[in-house]
Amino acid sequence: MKVEDKRDFTVVNHSVEKVDALALACGTARFTDDVDIRGLLTGRLLYSPHAHARIRRIDTAKARKVPGVLAVLTHEDLPRVRHTTAGQGYPEPSPYDTLALSEKARYVGDRVAAVAAETPEAAQEALDNIRVDYEVLPAVFDTMEAIKAGAPVIHDEADSKNIPDAKHNICAKFDFEVKQSEWFSEADVVVDRWYKTQWAQHCALEPHIVIVSFDEDGRLLIRTSTQVPFHARRITARVLRLPLKSIRVIKPRIGGGFGSKQEVLLEPVCAALALAARRPVKIELSRRETFVSSRTRHPFVIRLKTGARKDGTITDAHMEAYCDNGAYGAHSLTVMMCSGSHTLPMYQAKNTRFVGRSVYTNRPVGGAYRGFGATQGFFAWESQMDIMAGQLGLDPIEFRRKNYIRSGEGSPVFKAMGEGREGIEQKIGSCGMDECIAKGLAAIRWHEKKKLYKNQSGVKRRGLGCACMMQGSGIPEVDMAAASIKMNEDGSFNLHMGATDLGTGSDTVLAQIAAEVLGVGIKDVIVLSSDTDLTPFDVGAYASSTTFISGNAVKKAALKVREQILAVAARILDEKPEDIELAGGRAVGKSGRSCALSEVGNTSFYYHDQHQIMASASHVATSSPPPFAAHFAEVEVDTETGEVRVLDYAATVDCGTAINPALAEGQNDGAVLNGISYALTEEMLFSPAGAMLNPSFRGYKIFSAADAPPFKTILVPTYEADGPFGAKSVSEIGINGPQPAIANAIYDAVGVRLYEPPFTPEKVLGATLSETSESSLQTAVGRLPATEAAE
Amino acid sequence: MKVEDKRDFTVVNHSVEKVDALALACGTARFTDDVDIRGLLTGRLLYSPHAHARIRRIDTAKARKVPGVLAVLTHEDLPRVRHTTAGQGYPEPSPYDTLALSEKARYVGDRVAAVAAETPEAAQEALDNIRVDYEVLPAVFDTMEAIKAGAPVIHDEADSKNIPDAKHNICAKFDFEVKQSEWFSEADVVVDRWYKTQWAQHCALEPHIVIVSFDEDGRLLIRTSTQVPFHARRITARVLRLPLKSIRVIKPRIGGGFGSKQEVLLEPVCAALALAARRPVKIELSRRETFVSSRTRHPFVIRLKTGARKDGTITDAHMEAYCDNGAYGAHSLTVMMCSGSHTLPMYQAKNTRFVGRSVYTNRPVGGAYRGFGATQGFFAWESQMDIMAGQLGLDPIEFRRKNYIRSGEGSPVFKAMGEGREGIEQKIGSCGMDECIAKGLAAIRWHEKKKLYKNQSGVKRRGLGCACMMQGSGIPEVDMAAASIKMNEDGSFNLHMGATDLGTGSDTVLAQIAAEVLGVGIKDVIVLSSDTDLTPFDVGAYASSTTFISGNAVKKAALKVREQILAVAARILDEKPEDIELAGGRAVGKSGRSCALSEVGNTSFYYHDQHQIMASASHVATSSPPPFAAHFAEVEVDTETGEVRVLDYAATVDCGTAINPALAEGQNDGAVLNGISYALTEEMLFSPAGAMLNPSFRGYKIFSAADAPPFKTILVPTYEADGPFGAKSVSEIGINGPQPAIANAIYDAVGVRLYEPPFTPEKVLGATLSETSESSLQTAVGRLPATEAAE
Repeated sequence: MKVEDKRDFTVVNHSVEKVDALALACGTARFTDDVDIRGLLTGRLLYSPHAHARIRRIDTAKARKVPGVLAVLTHEDLPRVRHTTAGQGYPEPSPYDTLALSEKARYVGDRVAAVAAETPEAAQEALDNIRVDYEVLPAVFDTMEAIKAGAPVIHDEADSKNIPDAKHNICAKFDFEVKQSEWFSEADVVVDRWYKTQWAQHCALEPHIVIVSFDEDGRLLIRTSTQVPFHARRITARVLRLPLKSIRVIKPRIGGGFGSKQEVLLEPVCAALALAARRPVKIELSRRETFVSSRTRHPFVIRLKTGARKDGTITDAHMEAYCDNGAYGAHSLTVMMCSGSHTLPMYQAKNTRFVGRSVYTNRPVGGAYRGFGATQGFFAWESQMDIMAGQLGLDPIEFRRKNYIRSGEGSPVFKAMGEGREGIEQKIGSCGMDECIAKGLAAIRWHEKKKLYKNQSGVKRRGLGCACMMQGSGIPEVDMAAASIKMNEDGSFNLHMGATDLGTGSDTVLAQIAAEVLGVGIKDVIVLSSDTDLTPFDVGAYASSTTFISGNAVKKAALKVREQILAVAARILDEKPEDIELAGGRAVGKSGRSCALSEVGNTSFYYHDQHQIMASASHVATSSPPPFAAHFAEVEVDTETGEVRVLDYAATVDCGTAINPALAEGQNDGAVLNGISYALTEEMLFSPAGAMLNPSFRGYKIFSAADAPPFKTILVPTYEADGPFGAKSVSEIGINGPQPAIANAIYDAVGVRLYEPPFTPEKVLGATLSETSESSLQTAVGRLPATEAAE
Repeated sequence: MKVEDKRDFTVVNHSVEKVDALALACGTARFTDDVDIRGLLTGRLLYSPHAHARIRRIDTAKARKVPGVLAVLTHEDLPRVRHTTAGQGYPEPSPYDTLALSEKARYVGDRVAAVAAETPEAAQEALDNIRVDYEVLPAVFDTMEAIKAGAPVIHDEADSKNIPDAKHNICAKFDFEVKQSEWFSEADVVVDRWYKTQWAQHCALEPHIVIVSFDEDGRLLIRTSTQVPFHARRITARVLRLPLKSIRVIKPRIGGGFGSKQEVLLEPVCAALALAARRPVKIELSRRETFVSSRTRHPFVIRLKTGARKDGTITDAHMEAYCDNGAYGAHSLTVMMCSGSHTLPMYQAKNTRFVGRSVYTNRPVGGAYRGFGATQGFFAWESQMDIMAGQLGLDPIEFRRKNYIRSGEGSPVFKAMGEGREGIEQKIGSCGMDECIAKGLAAIRWHEKKKLYKNQSGVKRRGLGCACMMQGSGIPEVDMAAASIKMNEDGSFNLHMGATDLGTGSDTVLAQIAAEVLGVGIKDVIVLSSDTDLTPFDVGAYASSTTFISGNAVKKAALKVREQILAVAARILDEKPEDIELAGGRAVGKSGRSCALSEVGNTSFYYHDQHQIMASASHVATSSPPPFAAHFAEVEVDTETGEVRVLDYAATVDCGTAINPALAEGQNDGAVLNGISYALTEEMLFSPAGAMLNPSFRGYKIFSAADAPPFKTILVPTYEADGPFGAKSVSEIGINGPQPAIANAIYDAVGVRLYEPPFTPEKVLGATLSETSESSLQTAVGRLPATEAAE
C-alpha cells in the first residue's frame, strides 16, 4: 500500500501528547500578551451609548491635551472601508464592515473613537474627554420588525445601493427551490412551525488582543490573537491603505476563538494608533467590551414547513431563515446560507425550498461562531423531526433512519447551495450515521430508559431526546492551505504552516500527519504556525477546515519531502527508492539494511549532492465531506420550578479517522458542553434601548467544568477518501445537537415543545403552565406579512 | 535569451540601496543585544593568566555563595569535546577545539571557568572568588621553536595520538609536489627567502555576543552574532550533548565578522550557563577579552624558493608554510593549505611543491580571518616576484604578465590542493587580470611616476609597488546554500535564506538576484536570513562564498517561482508561459497584454487552482572561480624616521558581474583599508610570558576612516559563467594586496626589502640602517633544521 493510503498508523490515530502541552501546563506558552515591548502604549476605544445616532461632531481637543496621550482618532482619521470581493476570497465580504471607526452609531457599542496613551489611566482620561455630539435616531431591535416597511433604515450610506434591500434592512438574500412534485401534494402530514434562537457569544477565555509594533525596517508587526493571520494582513492593509508588504502578522498561542477571532476586529485600529503615535500600541478588550462590541452568534427566526407520508417518507421541506446581523453585515450571507445548506441535505425530500434573509438591526454584530448557522438551523430541523414523528405516530429514531442521507448519495441542495460559488456536485463519501445512532442509543440506554419513563408522575420527570446532524469540512474550491517542510541534519523537521491553532490542537494534528508520512515521532516535528512572513498562506482556521484542508497540504508536502529522503537513502543503502520505507526515524530497505534519518540529513547537508531536503505544497478541496453525529440527551424537568437538568448525554461523532482521538474527543466534548450551555443558559439580554444588560460572566452564564453534566463523546471511525489518512472535521458539529436533543427530551419528559432557547426555568415553567400546547411565537410571527416564498 | 543568462539587467549590477540601509542609518536595526529579555543574567568567563599550566584544582565554593550568582561552571561541567569529521562538513574540524572550558591552560586567555549572575558586578565578584590551583609549565611561543625536538608538548591529552605529530606540536600537515623536470635544473635565477607575518585580529566593531534564552517549549533559543548559524546549532548540540532539534539559532543584524564569527566561540558555554541557571544568559566580550581570548589571524613563517629563466619564465616554486595555530587548532588545516592553494596557481611553473605544517604554540588561537592564509601566502609570493624580477632585470609588471594564469587554463595545483577533498579539475573561466593591471597602472599613473621618482635624493623618498592576487569563491563540492521564496498576494516575495549577512550587504545582493529573476524591484523582496528554524540550510558566510553559492541557490529558487508565476499569468493573459516576461512588477505577454503580479498573487491565493506560489532550491558549486586583482601602491618613506606613508593606492578587482557595484566597491574598499592597516600598524604584541601587551584600540592600531590614505577601488567587469548572473566573489581578495604592494613600494623607494610586517617606522629605519641588504630573519630561520621537503 502506498504511504498516502496507509491505514496501519504509527502516529496518526494515536492520542499523542499535544505539541504545546508542556508549555500550556507550565505556563510558558506565549500568548499575544506574553511579550515585552519597550515603550508600549495602551490603546482604548470609545463606544456609542446609543443604539442609533447620527454623529454631528466629535471634539477631541481636550482629549489630546491629556498628559501622556499620543494619539486620538475618529472616523475622520480611520473611516470605514467598504468590503469588496475583488481579490479577497474568504472570509466572505459583507456590504459593510465595522473594522474601522463609525461615522454613525448603529448599536450600543459601535466604535466612535480610539486613543493611545502612556498608561491605561491616561487613555481612560482621554476617552472621558472626547465630546461626541449625537443626534439620537429611532432604532429597531427585532429581526422581523426590521424588514417591515417603515422601519428605521440602518444603512443609509451613499453607496447603500449595493445592499440588496437597504430600505428594508436586508443585507443579503439567498433563495432556491428544487421541486419534483406539487408542493405538499404527496404529504399526509404537514407541520408548519416558527423557531427563534437567541443572542449568544463565543466567550473565548483569552479576550481580543492585538499588539502593533514596528520591525527594524519600519514595517508593521502585528501580534494578534487571530484565526486568520493572512486575512488580518490583507484587511489591515486595505483599511489603512498601506501596501500589504509593509505588514507582518504574527499569530502566537491563542486562548480560544470559536469564530470570534475570524474577524479583523482590532488590528486596523491598533495599527492606525501605532502609526499616529509612532509607538507600539496594545489594545486588549475587557470582558465587558468583548460582550458589548465584538461579535455574536447570529440569532435566527426560522420557519419550517414540512410534509411527510404516513410511511415516514419526507416529501417537502420549506425553510425560511431570517438571520439577524445586528448593525453590520459580517458573514451575513454565508451564516444565513449555512442554516440551510448544512441542514436541508440531512434528509432527502422531493421538494426543497430555502428562503434566506440577512437582516440589519440596531444590535451587536453577528459573526462567525462554531456551527455557523447550522446550529440554529438544526435546532429548528431536529425539533421539527420530532414533531413530525409525533404527528405520524412514528418512532423518532426510525423516522430519522428512514430519511437521512447515506454514503454514495448526493443532494440537490449541495449543488443549489454551493455557497454562491460554482455548484458542488458533492456525493457523500463516508457516513457513519448508522453506527452513530446505534452506539448513542446503547450508550444512553435509550430503549431501557424509554420504558422506564413511560408513565411518570410526580414533580420531577425525565425524558429522552435525540438529534442528528452534519457539518462540512471546509469550503470546497474556496479554502486553500499550504505547508512547507524542511529537514534538519538530525532527522528532525521544521513544519511551517499558515494553519492557525487557536487552541484546537491543530498544530499537533498536522504534525502527526507529517510524522506519519515521514516515519518519525511527533517530537521530531517542530511546528511553526503561523506568521505571514514565515509560513505559507492559509485561509485560516474556520469552517472546520484545518484537519481536512491544511492536513492535506501537510501530507502533500511531507510526501514530497519523503521522496527526497528516499532518493538520498537509496544511495546510502544501495537500494531503489521505491523499495525503502521510512519508519522509526530510519530508512529501511527491502534488503533489511537501514540508516537513521540523521544520516540522510547529514549526507544531504554535508556529503554527496549537497542539498536542503525541503518542499512545500498547497491544497484546495474539491469536496467538503460532512462529519455526522447523533446526540442523545436525558433530562429531568422540575415541573414546579421549570428547571431542566441534563442527567446524561451521549454524543457520537463520525469524523472519519480521528488523527488524534484524545483531541478529537476534546473538540467534541467542548462543542457539546458549549451547546448544552447554549441550550440552557446562555443569552445576551438587552435593555429596551438596546444596551446589553449582562455583559459579564456573572450575568451571562457559560457552563464551566463544574457545571458539566455527565456526558460522553463516542468516536465512530469511518475512512474519508478525500481526507488526510481518512480524516474529516470534528470541531463544530458537536454544538449543533444539544439544543434540539434537549428540547426533544423536555418534550418527552413533560409534553411541552419549546421553540425559543435557552430553556430557562422561566420559559419551561411558562410553557408548562400555558393552556395551549404551542408558544406565542407561532401566532406572533405567523401574523407577519408572508415573504414571497412563504405561500 | 533565457532569463537565467540575461545580461541586460534591471536590478542586478545596479547600486540599489541596501535593504537594511534605513534601519542602520536610523539606529533601528536590531543587533544581538537589541532585545529585551525578562530575567536576563550576565555571563562572564574566567581566563588563565598563564601561558601553559596544569590545573590541579578549581575551587568554586566561594564563588557560588556570592549573592546573585546562579551558575558557576568549570571544565568538569563543560569539558572540551573533540572535533570529529563525521557528519559535520565545514567549518573544518580541527583536532582540538576550545569551544568549552579547558582542563589545562594552554595560553594566556584560555577559558577555565564561567559564571552567570543577576548583575555584572555579582558575576565579577564570582570570578574573583574562584580559586584555581595552577602548576605552571614551560611554554613555547615561537612557531619554529615549537616544532623542534624537546619543545614543551602543548597537547598531551589522552587521545593526542590523533594529532599528526603531537610531540612536535604539529597539528596538521599537507604536502604535495608536481614535478615535470629536475628541481631548479632549468632555472637561471634561484631566489630563496623566508617571510614572517604577524599576529593580527579582525576587530569587528560589534564584539562577540550571544544571548541564550528558552522558547515556550523549553528549547534553547540562541541569539548570536555569528557567521555560521547552522554550524552554531550543530556544534552547540554536540558540545552540550543535546539533540540538535532542541536548539534554534537566530542571527540578527551583525556588526562585522571578517571570519572571527565563523567559530562557535560563546554559544555552548552561554547555553550551558542558561541550562544550569534555568534563566536566560548573555555573554558579551569586552574589547580586551576579544583580543585576549577570541581568534586571531594565523601568523605564518613561509619559505619560498623559486626559480626562473632569463626570459622571465618561472620554472620552480617551492613553498614551505608554517602556520601558527596558537594553543588550539581551529581552521588549522585549511588556512595552512590556502596559503598555497590560492597563491601557487597564480603563476604557472613546471615544478611546484608545497610543504605545509600547522603548529601549536602557547599563544592565542588562530581562526578564520578574511584572506584565510592567502593573505599571508601572497605577502611572500608577491614580495618574491619583485625580488625575482629584480634579479632577472625585468620589469615587475611584465614579469607577472608573462606568468600569470589566464582564462581557459588549469593548474595542477587546483587538483593537488583540492582542499583534501576529491581533486577539483578546475579551469579558469573569467579572468580580468589584463584589464586589472592596465586600469591600475593608469589609475596610479605608474609609468609617469616611475620616471619622476627615478633618481630621488633627500629625506623623503617615494616608490611604487604592485601585487597581483586571486582568491576563491567558496569551496567547491563542499559549500552548500539553500533558499526559499514565497509569493504574497500583492506581488511581493519573502526570501528566506540560510545565508548570513554579517554587514557585507549579502541580504541586498541576494534580494537583487531574486528581484532580477522575478521582474520586481528590490523593495518587493522581504529578506529573512538566517534562523535555523525558519530558513533553509547554508554553510554560512565564509570563503567568499555567499554571492557565488547562496546567490546561485536564490537564483534557482527564483526561477522555480517564476515558472509558477508564468503558469498562472498564462491563464490570466491567455498566452503560453514561454511567451511571457516578468518586468516592472508585471507579467507581460507577447501580445502586449499584461497583468500586475498582484493579480497573479490574488488569483493563485483566492481564485483558480488556489495555491501558494513558493519554491526552494539548493546549490553546491562544482567550481570556485577566482576573482582576480592587481593593486598598486605609492608610498613615501621618511628615511630619518622610518615612517611609511601611503600616498595613493589603486585596487582593481575582477569580481565578474558586480551584483551591486556600490557594495562590491565597499567590500573591496574595506578589504584594502584592512590590508593597509595590516601592512603598516596592526600587530598583537606579547610579553615574554605570553600575555598580550596591547589588547585595546589604543595599543592595537587599526586604520579608521580618518587614517585612510587616498585609495580607490576599480571594478573590472567580467562574466563568470558559473556565477549567478556572472558574479564571482569580492569580499576577501582585497586584503591580500597591501602588504606585498607596500613592501614592494618601500623597496622601490629606499631599496630595503622587508620580510616581516607590519612595516613600522622602527622596522623600516632598522632595515635602512642595517649594513646587509637582508634581514636577520633569513639567517635566523635559515639555520633551522630543514624539513624533509626543504631540498
